[in-house]
Amino acid sequence: MSKQTDDFFKNIISHAKEYGFVFPSSEIYDGLSAVYDYGQLGSELKNNLKTYWWKSMVQLNENIVGIDAAIFMHPTTWKASGHVDGFNDPMIDNKDSKKRYRADQLIEDKIDRYAKDGKTDKAEQLQKELDDALNADDLARLKAIIEEHNIVCPISGTKNWTEVRQFNLMFATQMGAMADGAEQVYLRPETAQGIFVNFLNVQKTGRMKIPFGIAQIGKAFRNEVIARQFIMRMREFEQMEMQFFVRPGSELEWYTRWKETRLKWHLALGADPAKYRYHDHAKLAHYANAAVDIEYEFPFGFKEVEGIHSRTDFDLKQHQEYSKKKMQYFDPEINQNYIPYVIETSIGLDRLFLTVLANSLVQEDLSTPEKQDSRVVLKFHPAIAPVKAAVLPLTKKDGLPDKAREIMAKLKLDFNLQYDEKDAIGKRYRRQDAIGTPFCITVDYQTLDDDTVTIRHRDSMEQERVPAAELGRIIADLVSWNNLLEKLI
Amino acid sequence: MSKQTDDFFKNIISHAKEYGFVFPSSEIYDGLSAVYDYGQLGSELKNNLKTYWWKSMVQLNENIVGIDAAIFMHPTTWKASGHVDGFNDPMIDNKDSKKRYRADQLIEDKIDRYAKDGKTDKAEQLQKELDDALNADDLARLKAIIEEHNIVCPISGTKNWTEVRQFNLMFATQMGAMADGAEQVYLRPETAQGIFVNFLNVQKTGRMKIPFGIAQIGKAFRNEVIARQFIMRMREFEQMEMQFFVRPGSELEWYTRWKETRLKWHLALGADPAKYRYHDHAKLAHYANAAVDIEYEFPFGFKEVEGIHSRTDFDLKQHQEYSKKKMQYFDPEINQNYIPYVIETSIGLDRLFLTVLANSLVQEDLSTPEKQDSRVVLKFHPAIAPVKAAVLPLTKKDGLPDKAREIMAKLKLDFNLQYDEKDAIGKRYRRQDAIGTPFCITVDYQTLDDDTVTIRHRDSMEQERVPAAELGRIIADLVSWNNLLEKLI
Repeated sequence: MSKQTDDFFKNIISHAKEYGFVFPSSEIYDGLSAVYDYGQLGSELKNNLKTYWWKSMVQLNENIVGIDAAIFMHPTTWKASGHVDGFNDPMIDNKDSKKRYRADQLIEDKIDRYAKDGKTDKAEQLQKELDDALNADDLARLKAIIEEHNIVCPISGTKNWTEVRQFNLMFATQMGAMADGAEQVYLRPETAQGIFVNFLNVQKTGRMKIPFGIAQIGKAFRNEVIARQFIMRMREFEQMEMQFFVRPGSELEWYTRWKETRLKWHLALGADPAKYRYHDHAKLAHYANAAVDIEYEFPFGFKEVEGIHSRTDFDLKQHQEYSKKKMQYFDPEINQNYIPYVIETSIGLDRLFLTVLANSLVQEDLSTPEKQDSRVVLKFHPAIAPVKAAVLPLTKKDGLPDKAREIMAKLKLDFNLQYDEKDAIGKRYRRQDAIGTPFCITVDYQTLDDDTVTIRHRDSMEQERVPAAELGRIIADLVSWNNLLEKLI
Repeated sequence: MSKQTDDFFKNIISHAKEYGFVFPSSEIYDGLSAVYDYGQLGSELKNNLKTYWWKSMVQLNENIVGIDAAIFMHPTTWKASGHVDGFNDPMIDNKDSKKRYRADQLIEDKIDRYAKDGKTDKAEQLQKELDDALNADDLARLKAIIEEHNIVCPISGTKNWTEVRQFNLMFATQMGAMADGAEQVYLRPETAQGIFVNFLNVQKTGRMKIPFGIAQIGKAFRNEVIARQFIMRMREFEQMEMQFFVRPGSELEWYTRWKETRLKWHLALGADPAKYRYHDHAKLAHYANAAVDIEYEFPFGFKEVEGIHSRTDFDLKQHQEYSKKKMQYFDPEINQNYIPYVIETSIGLDRLFLTVLANSLVQEDLSTPEKQDSRVVLKFHPAIAPVKAAVLPLTKKDGLPDKAREIMAKLKLDFNLQYDEKDAIGKRYRRQDAIGTPFCITVDYQTLDDDTVTIRHRDSMEQERVPAAELGRIIADLVSWNNLLEKLI
């Protein structure tokens, strides 16, 4: 990461904190590693992103419905999905420092050092060794690589290592209070399985016909060993996933359609298209026959924001085997029973939140020959902006606050507003810019005469004079969800 | 519970399952005790209830903002709040059956049996003994009561009991992968503490002035020993809580105001006011100086749906003590620093969901002298109905479906709709009645001529003919959030 991009990323984090978007969790107790809380503006922005996604999935598509499955699921779910046996990181302990590390990460760090020292050949060779060991799931080989390349513990500086062991990333807890032992359950590591186990219930009670989709927004939990980069990789995070059930053989056609649809969804928010790219998975997961990431160019490089995966019939088949319930669909058009194939679209909501912040935060130079000036603006699409409009009496006296509150009382039924009468009007505009409020409504002396106000537009900073009675309609048009949704159909 | 109310409750549960409102969690694996999933209609209804609450709190009140804190919190939070030491149930094991019971529940069951057998004196006497033991937190006394009253294990029939022990209701899990032991964290047993630990962050970054409130919707978890009554008492549940920070001394005035405001909120949804009552807490929790429940008359009796609690400065004071951070507010009006007092309003969202189902589910007799007939209707307030309108072509041919889809394409930007062309029109109306859809739009042959449709109103079953072009406005007016919000101001 260059100094400049590093600074930009730090700016995002401090802006997010300073204006109430994201706080470290339990900060008064010095935080909890890789867990964050959304503040008064962050919770609004997050809710708006959820609404945009939900509307685009469930409201726009007659054949997509939502569910809200619990975080706790029957433990057999995770046997069937493969998470109990396969959702692991390879860990190694240093016996002197008593510190634990991800074995592959230690080797990656060594590769980086080789590369930095100009030992490109060595770096490439080691990368190959690492890939081979990981592909073969060969823990002993990982240990051997660490020893052969003289990798030492960053704390103790010694090579006194334990064996490499698998460490499961699911959080486990005990449910119930049986005398003969409670049941071990897991916090779901992904929301997808909540959809698969409800496939039959939704299909039958909702009278759904293939192709159809089930959408869900909810929390998932992973005990990440190395959690970092702010809200990019958290231990508690939120997913927005849609599983689309199709006739076997048609899955790649649907995969292509969803791949296009989902990119369009991101671009509708107004980002520079050059910031997005597709990244095909070079190596497919055991359950997939096609997979692509939509990547966004964060300050620290292109990273996944959403994945589109053709998951075949893997999950439903596994649940059929473990539950002994037939996970089949009778297709009246071809008169056949089959286990549907699945295309998944999966967004990390917190990452999406970060892309939106990164995309929107702009430091603008407003200097003139006479005076240096600048402003910080969050250029959110108006539909997702946390606060839709600020109502500002020009001064605190002469009845202007009363008039402002009167206007506010009418508008607040429809919009999330802020009222601010403190400091000079210019300073108040800048405060609203910094939190991304698209419109400022100023009540001045003329308002008392003719019931007009000025409305200032965040991005252009231009002001226009409009009748107060028309504010509701004007703002409604500008912040309408339809401005986003229309781009998708 | 009488036979009739028992049947009504069973009807609610089966209706909720049959139409995709609530499914048992992981049902293909025979479910997970006291955990439920919300289906395609349940998730919509639940989202709408959240929206109604959030709008009424955050949008209507200039001085209330929202947050979205994580489920994981620093473990010291729960020391400070008292949950680590005090959030317990007294448990006892039978050594023969190896079954575990809540000691107080065993005694309650005995009291019920005394009462049933007409031994009123004995029942009252035992109730007093139980209350005294619980008030004194006297576990040995609980054990003694069980022995003195010859209470036996319902499974083994023996009195071979262990001592009574405290069992903490918080779910615990291990976070991190340190070689020297991971950190034990808890799943939050209430959302309130997420607000208290963020008090300073929100107050400062949001420039909030007392009195002000912080609202939050989120999951909480309790390892209930006896979880029952469908979604009334679950191990994973959702809360909608608002903590309102006030100047010390003014708390009881605010308490009274919130008590009234909150009842109004429930009644706005259209329930019979006789179904609601206040229930003052006879015994106050250690942190409260006033507390009341808003109770709803469920089929199994009046039960709490929402609590309003005057929590004093207990929580902030505790966090100040444990975190060594000053949880104070400087009040510019009186030029003083103080720890604010708190009024809490706390709804169980799942219980609220159940009140709405119980309130809305109606079996209507439509019999005429000629013909027996009835219908099942969910009379949701239109603003919270999962599906706003159904678009129904009268027949499947002659271009009516195309016309219906054309109408649908316009409306779907604004409303969650269903399209249905299967079965006779009367049957389709009944299907929509059963899921609470307030409006059915029928496209018939006249539509092809003059572009008018019929709109059928769920509750009155009356139909009117309107121009298709006006549908958007008509439905928007009828389902508008303002119809609810206006009742609150």
